[in-house]
Amino acid sequence: MTGDRTALRRFSLNQATTKRWPLPDVVAGCVAAGVPGIGLWREPVAEHGLARTAKLVRDAGLEVTTLCRGGFFSAGGWRDENLRAIEEAATLGAPVLVLVSGGLPEGSRDIDGARARVADAIADLAPHAEAAGVRLAIEPLHPMFTADRCVIATLGQALDIAQRFAPEVVGVVVDAYHVWWDDTVYAQIARAGEWIASFQVCDWITPLPEGVLLGRALPGDGCIELRRLREAVDAAGYTGPIEVEVFHADIWARPGAQVLAAAIDGYLREVA
Amino acid sequence: MTGDRTALRRFSLNQATTKRWPLPDVVAGCVAAGVPGIGLWREPVAEHGLARTAKLVRDAGLEVTTLCRGGFFSAGGWRDENLRAIEEAATLGAPVLVLVSGGLPEGSRDIDGARARVADAIADLAPHAEAAGVRLAIEPLHPMFTADRCVIATLGQALDIAQRFAPEVVGVVVDAYHVWWDDTVYAQIARAGEWIASFQVCDWITPLPEGVLLGRALPGDGCIELRRLREAVDAAGYTGPIEVEVFHADIWARPGAQVLAAAIDGYLREVA
Repeated sequence: MTGDRTALRRFSLNQATTKRWPLPDVVAGCVAAGVPGIGLWREPVAEHGLARTAKLVRDAGLEVTTLCRGGFFSAGGWRDENLRAIEEAATLGAPVLVLVSGGLPEGSRDIDGARARVADAIADLAPHAEAAGVRLAIEPLHPMFTADRCVIATLGQALDIAQRFAPEVVGVVVDAYHVWWDDTVYAQIARAGEWIASFQVCDWITPLPEGVLLGRALPGDGCIELRRLREAVDAAGYTGPIEVEVFHADIWARPGAQVLAAAIDGYLREVA
Repeated sequence: MTGDRTALRRFSLNQATTKRWPLPDVVAGCVAAGVPGIGLWREPVAEHGLARTAKLVRDAGLEVTTLCRGGFFSAGGWRDENLRAIEEAATLGAPVLVLVSGGLPEGSRDIDGARARVADAIADLAPHAEAAGVRLAIEPLHPMFTADRCVIATLGQALDIAQRFAPEVVGVVVDAYHVWWDDTVYAQIARAGEWIASFQVCDWITPLPEGVLLGRALPGDGCIELRRLREAVDAAGYTGPIEVEVFHADIWARPGAQVLAAAIDGYLREVA
């Protein structure tokens, strides 16, 4: 593991990468490793306590890079849930709330309708987020999640919505795992410019597991041109944090500090 | 089961839907059900014998709508293999050879390179196909297959290649399962026009199984707007066969005639 603070200047550990590492241990582990930022998830934050988490990360000098996540606009109660998520982000000092739109409602085939509702919901939430000093970030998920998790399937689609707003109010997440396959991705990244609110990395491996959620690899272990994507978001003007966000049952089973070391190693070799 | 020949005028059974049904039984089953067309696969054709299969379908009065499949341009020996596939299509009287491009070579991350090779390979094969009276049809596969099966991930990308050629020489396959999620799909279908060489249908269900290959459903059992897509290909000028092509282990385990009846039923209710 490296503790080089200059090399790790933009590195952020997304908490989902070390899902089973208790929050105080994650924070201590990041500090020990010289990691300046962390991406938090609402569920473990709630478990540890919102105010207690805010104090924990502040006292440790860690920057909260994103809060994951709001969205799921096809679920009942989505508006109150998202207003709560905005408040939580503000309390944590997270500048960005990641939005995953949700899929088709059970039994529905109306994909145009679902997509229109996402745009409407974001228009509804944007003033509240702006007032709270939290930037909404629309995350397109890989098209294998369109039906059940996120009807926003490409960066182009996310930008079609985000660019109706000022970039400091609504931006987009560029997650390498979700966009690498798209032959228009470099054009869309250039188009995104200052609307890029977050850049996340992990790697693509096959075969995909059942349910396709937990099949991601650490940077460098798969087939994504991560450095090329990082250079593209940089060229578009993005200077913010780079989160390593990996979901994989085997990685979750390993000790947190070991996974963090591997994430840092992959980041330095393949992304930075 | 319906035997209405007018209603089934465009219906074709892709052989992969009833993978374990022996070829003579598939042909007899199609005739009994009033099905006019069949999409064949190279492996079962080779097993039954090429000339024998050609005679079997001809004697039954069945139209061979496509031969699946050529492509896999990242594999060694791809050129000879594709020239053989073209000859087989000609022998069977199949007007269309479906091409699945292949994924990234083992260990490679060079997706631009892989995509360029696909275009080069098709340019190489096109004159041979034209001479044999066989139309090449580039099939974009869903982006969950980009890494390991097909670097052509969208209809737009397939058209970028196909439209370098005359439409009767190189076309595209519009397979509902692979393209339904794309917010530009209706624009791309309109753009495709007479380059549409084949239209295939099945349905999208979740959760996806491990490996994501065998997770397809019969028309009507999932969330794809199949009739809307069929109307769009019609509006683009396509008047050809509509193949039902479903890959699912549970469906393969059922008796062929029962699956064919269910495919016809789904087709009439949801597509025609």
